[in-house]
Amino acid sequence: MSVLVVGSTALDSIKTPRGENPRLLGGSASHAAVAASFFAPVKMVGVVGEDFPRKYLALYRRHNIDLSGLRIVPGKTFHWSGEYEADMNHRRTLQTELGVFENFTPHLSAAHRQTPFVLLANIAPALQHHVLDQMRRPRFVVADTMDLWLKIARDDLLKLLRRIDGFVLNDSEAQQLTGEENTFAALKKIHRLGPKYVVIKKGSHGSVLSGPSGHFLCPAYPLRRVVDPTGAGDSFAGALIGYLAARGGSLEANFRRAMIYGSVVASFCCEGFGLNRTTKIVRADIARRVKELERLTRF
Amino acid sequence: MSVLVVGSTALDSIKTPRGENPRLLGGSASHAAVAASFFAPVKMVGVVGEDFPRKYLALYRRHNIDLSGLRIVPGKTFHWSGEYEADMNHRRTLQTELGVFENFTPHLSAAHRQTPFVLLANIAPALQHHVLDQMRRPRFVVADTMDLWLKIARDDLLKLLRRIDGFVLNDSEAQQLTGEENTFAALKKIHRLGPKYVVIKKGSHGSVLSGPSGHFLCPAYPLRRVVDPTGAGDSFAGALIGYLAARGGSLEANFRRAMIYGSVVASFCCEGFGLNRTTKIVRADIARRVKELERLTRF
Repeated sequence: MSVLVVGSTALDSIKTPRGENPRLLGGSASHAAVAASFFAPVKMVGVVGEDFPRKYLALYRRHNIDLSGLRIVPGKTFHWSGEYEADMNHRRTLQTELGVFENFTPHLSAAHRQTPFVLLANIAPALQHHVLDQMRRPRFVVADTMDLWLKIARDDLLKLLRRIDGFVLNDSEAQQLTGEENTFAALKKIHRLGPKYVVIKKGSHGSVLSGPSGHFLCPAYPLRRVVDPTGAGDSFAGALIGYLAARGGSLEANFRRAMIYGSVVASFCCEGFGLNRTTKIVRADIARRVKELERLTRF
Repeated sequence: MSVLVVGSTALDSIKTPRGENPRLLGGSASHAAVAASFFAPVKMVGVVGEDFPRKYLALYRRHNIDLSGLRIVPGKTFHWSGEYEADMNHRRTLQTELGVFENFTPHLSAAHRQTPFVLLANIAPALQHHVLDQMRRPRFVVADTMDLWLKIARDDLLKLLRRIDGFVLNDSEAQQLTGEENTFAALKKIHRLGPKYVVIKKGSHGSVLSGPSGHFLCPAYPLRRVVDPTGAGDSFAGALIGYLAARGGSLEANFRRAMIYGSVVASFCCEGFGLNRTTKIVRADIARRVKELERLTRF
């Protein structure tokens, strides 16, 4: 089954202790769509400006991403620039130029509305709502978010949580949302807000699932060298929903492995700037790391 | 087979967001010996003052800990007091009164020298050397340490690393020792310093083993409420070596499960002040959490 990915499509200028790269392909939808494309057919909805490099359109197409929902409009593509500290768990935004993204309203075609799996990648909750308003009874909806929306659009986000099946957020966002330092206490509180599946991502410390059949402690794939973690969380969510869409059958039975796949694709994402590494891997590379995670966690 | 535990025996006054407790039984050897006692016969070597409460001696005895190596001498017992911040991963020492510990030199009896498994719990590396000097070809020696020794006794510690089989330290100590932010890069560097087995503990994020057959990603047992993490690392090391001593056979084959047992006993330790919770559990409680960790990590 196919996956609809809605989110930001951006150009990222990133500085990490490993180097500096301007105008890379970025944005939550780009990372998530490429990650999901390893598993299932993907339709992407977003907007870019006329300055958007053609090579990036070609890159999406190489991943068989359906671009009928990507609008190219006059103006500049959303541009984000940020810098990472030595431990890479902290970054600061240097500049955000919204460009054409400022007036983005996702309009779904009839075909888009029928998609069974939906990933509401990180964008304003109001836009995530707008996507859901147009959908025709999707089978499974996952949403991601960021700290900014917890600050400036909390009510919209809380309303969204009652409309989705799965919610993916990182540990600091979980704390911000619930006031709980403890991951497991936070998970419990987030369920009460709506979602049946809650995933808290902890960067290099892995992630935790809370769902109908309890918790799953998902390891991060061990990396000796992180080049650029931008998009790792989006890659995680993309691979997760892509795997679920590809497997069909019981979501509950597949969810743990879906997280492992998310973890593995996120690990590749961290090994290069932007999408540089993720776009160079094939399914066999992913399968190898999944096997390795099995070996690394067995006892 | 039996385990020799050498380390500090102290009275701890601890303040956490959950409460405040004066003069609890503490010290690296106390936590490690009790943890190891669930699996194997334990001999403890240490020193306390005449003020040491008799009830704590009774507590050791209830755990069948051989106290022939615990000297009671005129003076005051080592007293540590500390306070934890809200997230419990950070603590600050308020006061350290060494008391009789200041002149502690571990003297081993003939029986002690023959013990096959040795845990050099956290004390000055010079004392850890002094213990090893007296041992008669032990089968397996594990050492723990703390940031203080990395600062003031680095050379002693580096010499020790060439004499031990297993080294257990936490992530910030690993970074301090190697200069590497990355756990896996740090593990590689620590092997070069000597130990065949290196375990980096990451508190609530679990631990990582690096040994002859590769890495093992060991989860922390999920706790919704941490009361007092003091001694969790010592408990981890104690249960680990206790399990290895009890199982016999190939160390390599048992090491992963030994870490899981370490993780579980450490989780109980965190649920009460000092040794309050750890001393109330039985083997069946430990077995239940080990089973649960199996379920929590399977995919």
